[in-house]
Amino acid sequence: MVRVLQADELKSLLKNVFKSLNVDEKYVEVIADSLVNSNLRCVDSHGVSRGLDFINGIKLGEINPRPNIKVLKESEVAVLVDGDRGVGIPVAYEVTLKVVEKAKKLGVGIGAAKNLWNVGALAYYVMRVAKEGLIGVSIANAKARIGIPGIRSPIVGTNPIAIAVPTEDGPIVLDMALSTVAVGKIVLAARKGEKIPEGWAVDKDGKPTTDPKEALEGYLTPVGGYKGLGLAIMVDVLSSALIDAPYSLIISGKGPYTQGGFLIMALNPTIFREYREFIEDVRSYVETLKSLPKDPEAEVLMPGEPEARCLSRRSTEGIPLDDGVWEQLVKVVNELGIRPNERS
Amino acid sequence: MVRVLQADELKSLLKNVFKSLNVDEKYVEVIADSLVNSNLRCVDSHGVSRGLDFINGIKLGEINPRPNIKVLKESEVAVLVDGDRGVGIPVAYEVTLKVVEKAKKLGVGIGAAKNLWNVGALAYYVMRVAKEGLIGVSIANAKARIGIPGIRSPIVGTNPIAIAVPTEDGPIVLDMALSTVAVGKIVLAARKGEKIPEGWAVDKDGKPTTDPKEALEGYLTPVGGYKGLGLAIMVDVLSSALIDAPYSLIISGKGPYTQGGFLIMALNPTIFREYREFIEDVRSYVETLKSLPKDPEAEVLMPGEPEARCLSRRSTEGIPLDDGVWEQLVKVVNELGIRPNERS
Repeated sequence: MVRVLQADELKSLLKNVFKSLNVDEKYVEVIADSLVNSNLRCVDSHGVSRGLDFINGIKLGEINPRPNIKVLKESEVAVLVDGDRGVGIPVAYEVTLKVVEKAKKLGVGIGAAKNLWNVGALAYYVMRVAKEGLIGVSIANAKARIGIPGIRSPIVGTNPIAIAVPTEDGPIVLDMALSTVAVGKIVLAARKGEKIPEGWAVDKDGKPTTDPKEALEGYLTPVGGYKGLGLAIMVDVLSSALIDAPYSLIISGKGPYTQGGFLIMALNPTIFREYREFIEDVRSYVETLKSLPKDPEAEVLMPGEPEARCLSRRSTEGIPLDDGVWEQLVKVVNELGIRPNERS
Repeated sequence: MVRVLQADELKSLLKNVFKSLNVDEKYVEVIADSLVNSNLRCVDSHGVSRGLDFINGIKLGEINPRPNIKVLKESEVAVLVDGDRGVGIPVAYEVTLKVVEKAKKLGVGIGAAKNLWNVGALAYYVMRVAKEGLIGVSIANAKARIGIPGIRSPIVGTNPIAIAVPTEDGPIVLDMALSTVAVGKIVLAARKGEKIPEGWAVDKDGKPTTDPKEALEGYLTPVGGYKGLGLAIMVDVLSSALIDAPYSLIISGKGPYTQGGFLIMALNPTIFREYREFIEDVRSYVETLKSLPKDPEAEVLMPGEPEARCLSRRSTEGIPLDDGVWEQLVKVVNELGIRPNERS
C-alpha cells in the first residue's frame, strides 16, 4: 500500500519533525524544501527517505542540528564554507547563494563546502543557480561503493555531477550518479528474487556477479566502464584534495547521510554574449532536438525532462510514499509527540 | 607494415608540411607539437592522422592557413576568441594561455573559442594548464554522430570532456569522448569482417545493429546510455549557445577536422587552500588507490596513466605509423616537394 500526501502537507510535517529534533529554525525550510522537491521530481531516493537518514543521524549525535556554518576563505571569485557537521542541505544552499552573487558581479563564482553531511540532490542547487539566469555546475563525492573487476575493495563513490542551463520554460537539468545503475534497482531485484544483468555490479572480492545479494555486499560498477570510473576519480579529487575534505574511501558515517565535499560553480552567460541571444539559441536547440525524425513511440528527452513531468503530475496528484517510508515517518512523528494539527 | 619515426623527426616533418601549405609560421610549432603529443600518448586518432585531415582541409580551402585569431570579448575572468576558420590547435592554445594568466591572478579563468576547425586532443590544453599548477577542465562539441534507438538521425557529437589535475609526477588526465566506443573500433571490426557487440551502435534508421557496416552508416551510442547522452547534450549547449558557435547537428565541413566551439577553465587550487597541502593530498590519494587489495593481475589505473606509459615508451622506441597514414604523409611530402634534408 502507498500513502499519498500533498507536497505542502509533507513539507510541513518534515519541518515540524526537524524543529522537534532541535534543528536550527532558519534551516528547516530549505531542508524540507529540498527533500520534497526531490520527491516531486520522482527522485525518491533523495526525498523523505533521505530525510529519515538525517533524522537517524541527528538522533545518533553524528549530525549537528545547530551548526555554525562559517566562511573559511573568500575572494571575489571563490568561497569555501565549513558546514560544522550539519545537514548538508543548508550548507550547500548557502554556498549556492554566494556563487550566484559572485557570478552576477564578476561573471563566475566557485564555491565549496566541507565538514557537512549529505546535501540531497545536486539538482536542487544547480536549478537554484539557473533560476537566476546563470549556468550551474555542481559535483560532490560520497562514500566509496563503486568497484571494478579484480579489485577487492570499493574505489570511489557514485560521485554525482549536475549541470543546469536556464531556459524560458524551466532549466535543462542533468543530475547523474556515476554508477551504471542506482543501488535501488539492485535492492528491488533482491526483493523480487531476480538476477541482475551482467555488468551492474561486482561482489566484495571484485568478481562480476548477477546475484543481487552478492552485489549488495559488493560494489556497483562505474557507468560506461573506465570512462565513468575516470570521471568519478576526478570528482573525488576535486571534492576532497582541493578543499581538504575526505575522499570517498575515508568518508565516515554509516548511513547514506554521509558526504565528503561539495562544489558548485555559477557561470553568467553574459561573460560571452547577450543573455537574450543565449536564451534564444538554447530554445532553438531544444526545438531542433525535439523535432528530429523518429519512430512513432520514440522521443528525445532533454536532461531533467522526465523529472519536470513528474513534478507537474505530483504537484496536483500528490506524492506517493511507500509503506516502509511512511511507517518510519509516522513512527518518528509519534516519538516526537507531533500532533496532527501541527502536521500542516 | 608499420613505419616507426622518432617524435622529433615526425614533428619536423609535420612543421615543414604545414609551412609549405602556407600555414602561419607562428602556429606550426604548436600544431605539430599537439599532433605528435597525441601519437606519443597512443591517441593515434588525434595525431598525424588528424594532421592529414587538416592538410586536406587546407587544400580544399575550408581551413584558413593564416587566420587572424582575435579576442572578441574579455573581462578579468573570461575571454572569447574568434579563430577565423583556422586550424583549431593554435586558437585553443591561445585561449589556454589566457585562462592560465587569469587563474594565476584571480583564481579562476574561463575561455572559449568559436569559428575554428578541430582542436586535436583536449588533453593537450588541460595538461598545459596543469603544468602551471592549475586544474584544467575543457569541453568541445563535434559533428553529430551519436544516436539512440528509435531516433532516425544523429543527435549530438561525441563531445569530449577533459580534466587535468597537477601532481608532482605529471598530471592526472581524463580525456574522454561521450560515445560507448571510438569509431575506430567499429572500423576495425568492419575490416576484419567481425560483428560488433550489441549496444555500440544503431543503424541510420535508429535500429540497434551488430553489423559494423550498418553501424558506420548509422550512429554511435552514448556511453552509459541516457547518462552519456545527457552529458553530450550539456557539452553541446555549452559549446554552442553559450558562445554563439554551431551545435553538433549544424557543424559544417565533411572531415573530422570540424569542430563547433571550445571551452576551457583554469582553476587555481589556492582559491581554497595552500598549494603544497593540495599537492600532498593528491599524492596521498593516488597512493591509496594504487594500494587497494586486488587480484595479482589487476591494477587501479589513474586517468591518463596508460597514455603516460605509452608516451614514455614511444619517446624512446619511436612512434609507429600504420601503412595508410604513412603513405598519405609521404604522398603529401612529395606533392609539396619537401626534400629529405628538410624533414629533420
